[in-house]
Amino acid sequence: MKLETPLEIFDLANDYQLKIIDNQYQGKIYGINEIHKVSIGDITFVDTPKYFDKALNSEASVIIINQKIDCPEGKVLLYSSNPFKTYNQIAKDHRPFLFSNQMISKSAEIDPSTKIFPNVFIGEHVKIGKNCIIYPNVTIYSHTIIEDHVIIHSNTAIGSDAFYYNKQNEVYEKMHSIGHTHIESHVEIGSNCSIDRGVSGITRIGKGSKLDNQIHIAHGVTIGENCLLCAQVAIAGKSKIGNHVTIYGKVGISKGITIGDFAIILASSNVDKNLEGHRRYFGSPAIEARQAMKYFASLRLLPDYIKKINLMLKESEMTSIKQ
Amino acid sequence: MKLETPLEIFDLANDYQLKIIDNQYQGKIYGINEIHKVSIGDITFVDTPKYFDKALNSEASVIIINQKIDCPEGKVLLYSSNPFKTYNQIAKDHRPFLFSNQMISKSAEIDPSTKIFPNVFIGEHVKIGKNCIIYPNVTIYSHTIIEDHVIIHSNTAIGSDAFYYNKQNEVYEKMHSIGHTHIESHVEIGSNCSIDRGVSGITRIGKGSKLDNQIHIAHGVTIGENCLLCAQVAIAGKSKIGNHVTIYGKVGISKGITIGDFAIILASSNVDKNLEGHRRYFGSPAIEARQAMKYFASLRLLPDYIKKINLMLKESEMTSIKQ
Amino acid sequence: MKLETPLEIFDLANDYQLKIIDNQYQGKIYGINEIHKVSIGDITFVDTPKYFDKALNSEASVIIINQKIDCPEGKVLLYSSNPFKTYNQIAKDHRPFLFSNQMISKSAEIDPSTKIFPNVFIGEHVKIGKNCIIYPNVTIYSHTIIEDHVIIHSNTAIGSDAFYYNKQNEVYEKMHSIGHTHIESHVEIGSNCSIDRGVSGITRIGKGSKLDNQIHIAHGVTIGENCLLCAQVAIAGKSKIGNHVTIYGKVGISKGITIGDFAIILASSNVDKNLEGHRRYFGSPAIEARQAMKYFASLRLLPDYIKKINLMLKESEMTSIKQ
Repeated sequence: MKLETPLEIFDLANDYQLKIIDNQYQGKIYGINEIHKVSIGDITFVDTPKYFDKALNSEASVIIINQKIDCPEGKVLLYSSNPFKTYNQIAKDHRPFLFSNQMISKSAEIDPSTKIFPNVFIGEHVKIGKNCIIYPNVTIYSHTIIEDHVIIHSNTAIGSDAFYYNKQNEVYEKMHSIGHTHIESHVEIGSNCSIDRGVSGITRIGKGSKLDNQIHIAHGVTIGENCLLCAQVAIAGKSKIGNHVTIYGKVGISKGITIGDFAIILASSNVDKNLEGHRRYFGSPAIEARQAMKYFASLRLLPDYIKKINLMLKESEMTSIKQ
Repeated sequence: MKLETPLEIFDLANDYQLKIIDNQYQGKIYGINEIHKVSIGDITFVDTPKYFDKALNSEASVIIINQKIDCPEGKVLLYSSNPFKTYNQIAKDHRPFLFSNQMISKSAEIDPSTKIFPNVFIGEHVKIGKNCIIYPNVTIYSHTIIEDHVIIHSNTAIGSDAFYYNKQNEVYEKMHSIGHTHIESHVEIGSNCSIDRGVSGITRIGKGSKLDNQIHIAHGVTIGENCLLCAQVAIAGKSKIGNHVTIYGKVGISKGITIGDFAIILASSNVDKNLEGHRRYFGSPAIEARQAMKYFASLRLLPDYIKKINLMLKESEMTSIKQ
Repeated sequence: MKLETPLEIFDLANDYQLKIIDNQYQGKIYGINEIHKVSIGDITFVDTPKYFDKALNSEASVIIINQKIDCPEGKVLLYSSNPFKTYNQIAKDHRPFLFSNQMISKSAEIDPSTKIFPNVFIGEHVKIGKNCIIYPNVTIYSHTIIEDHVIIHSNTAIGSDAFYYNKQNEVYEKMHSIGHTHIESHVEIGSNCSIDRGVSGITRIGKGSKLDNQIHIAHGVTIGENCLLCAQVAIAGKSKIGNHVTIYGKVGISKGITIGDFAIILASSNVDKNLEGHRRYFGSPAIEARQAMKYFASLRLLPDYIKKINLMLKESEMTSIKQ
């Protein structure tokens, strides 16, 4: 998330009682982002030595850390005994939880050509473009952006919190979501879908893509243009789906996966690796469909081959006895 | 969809600026249906030479087509450079999108014995029979028919649009849904289910069938009587499920599949072929359960057999060297 | 379900016109429970000789049965020609279906610190603790208990009826649900989740557990503390998940399963057996992940090995011809 008003390092250190370990950065804080989404000017945090290198070599300019280590050039290190807690508090203070007791928030900007059925909840600072149709019982969380000619069917939730926790002493601490969801033009979304906002970035559904019913899109996922996602597809956090991708029913895609343009993933497959475009995939784990079919075909021959092998083993045993 | 008032061929050709290629049909237009659902008197469209034969040999009496070809006996051919667009416009004009800003539409007919919780949306021309219970946050789209003694749990959507598009230059054009959903008596439907309307036909849930939570039923599906569908089952477009069928949790069924009476499909199976009744099925793709179990059992033996084969190969190599 | 006011055997027999076969029990009726949930003082039913022994040896004190058999010590047998129907009627009379036309029932007890968005339905006798957030279009059925610091996202249904039927002459008769759902403190539940109440017992989500979107939790399931359930997980009736269990996306768990503490179940697995804690599982059916991976690896070698075997078979044939 980018800040509307940049923050001074000194003020922030003061407000959250953070010791400045070292300051090799001459600028202000322009954004708050978790480590996968940082760019220059951002503040982020790291609390595990395992990820220190990643954080120190990232584009983030300001890093909240729980160890006094050497500060790389062009960065500020701020000390906190619990960097997650400090970062989460900064996130909460700069994009707070917004309660609303109105069905359609007064701060929402909705084009008058858009048709909104009864019982639709629209949160604070939502923007909805022209000629959309929003069916009953849809919930649109704060800060969601919806472009023109979008159709959203009943009981779908857009922009709910990321499923993202920090584990401390075997207890899950909720990371406050400060990202949002962006639905581009000509998208259609079926009923009972769940599209989470980014943790600190954007969940994006590309122009012209069509989503069937009961689809789950996790935080920070990007879906390209003119994709087709059939019912009950689930895509885990931060995965990137290219353009013109077809994903059949019940497919699951793990987190952080990249799928190339024009890929086709057959029903009920489970994707745990990046997939190149322009090919068909099948299986759990998903591999090229032709290859998967070959394995299935050979599996069907297996019981017979086991009999044959047993016969060969017996014969070879008999031969060796004879010898 | 059947029309309340039949249309004259000449009027329709005039209204939509369609050239009559040839007219070998002496009647009116009685229904608007896509090619899988046509009967005599219907208008339909075809835009790909691949499907010309199917359309010309179908029961449809009036065919919108983008090529001037010979007209079969008893049919009318109407020329359009974009038959899908023309057909879709006719569909929209004869069963238009119905917006309603009332929670329960005035045109809905609901028996007074039926209990409707707050926050239920009921669209135009819906009919609901006796002694039903509709729980909160359910959405019932226009033209849905619900018979007696039906229970629908919270956040379920009945009668949403078909997930059906016409691909033109790599862009998906939405086909306007003019079908509806029909729920027969004594059906119970769980929470967060999605039951789409037919594209031009009917989606039907047969008498006494019970659906668990989070079930997806696509456009034009027929489910027979006294079926049991467990949670997260998904059935793709136009499939036909017989009577007394049991479908365990998370099963997926591809489009256009027929399942025989009293079939049992075990959890998480994926059905891509028609299945005969009175048998148990399992797997992805689903086959007879006994056979599937046999394959799994032999797969578990495979690592050991591979070792044995390697030993045999080594021995035979040694034998041939000796020779 | 325990009764607020205990019932006299004689009064109940009179009210439901049940013949006392024999009475070896000197107490009152303290609870109504189906056979899997009974304790001393409970009334239950049995209608199939197959389950007579189970019922007679259960802790239930009062058994409605359709056969005049010997009464075990300390029990009462009540005769009904249709024990299910009689039991179901007693259940309905003592925890009746509660209709409410208010969005938030007057009998609900909600701590004023809890934030409830618009369009949330809260049924009769619901209790909600401190500092909870309930997002729009959530439905909370009657008798649900929610402790402190719970977050429930949009369009989720808590406490809907058990998917539980008694099959009589190939027709499913609904068993009236008299259980409830209990959500412990610090639980977060995603959007479009479905959590059913117990048939007669409790569905429980343990302290600190986090549920992603589109999760199905069936009747009587117990989830321990600090579990993580990813999107589209489904858990069938009465299964028991330990503490600190991680269940990845799209996992299905069959009914009556027990999962040990700290178990990890990888995405899309299907569990049909009890699983010990502190291990990783994968596959359909799920087995130890390492073992499952071994089978997959050997399956990928299979087509090549089949070629090798065919070659060996040919050679051995040639050898035998030569001989």
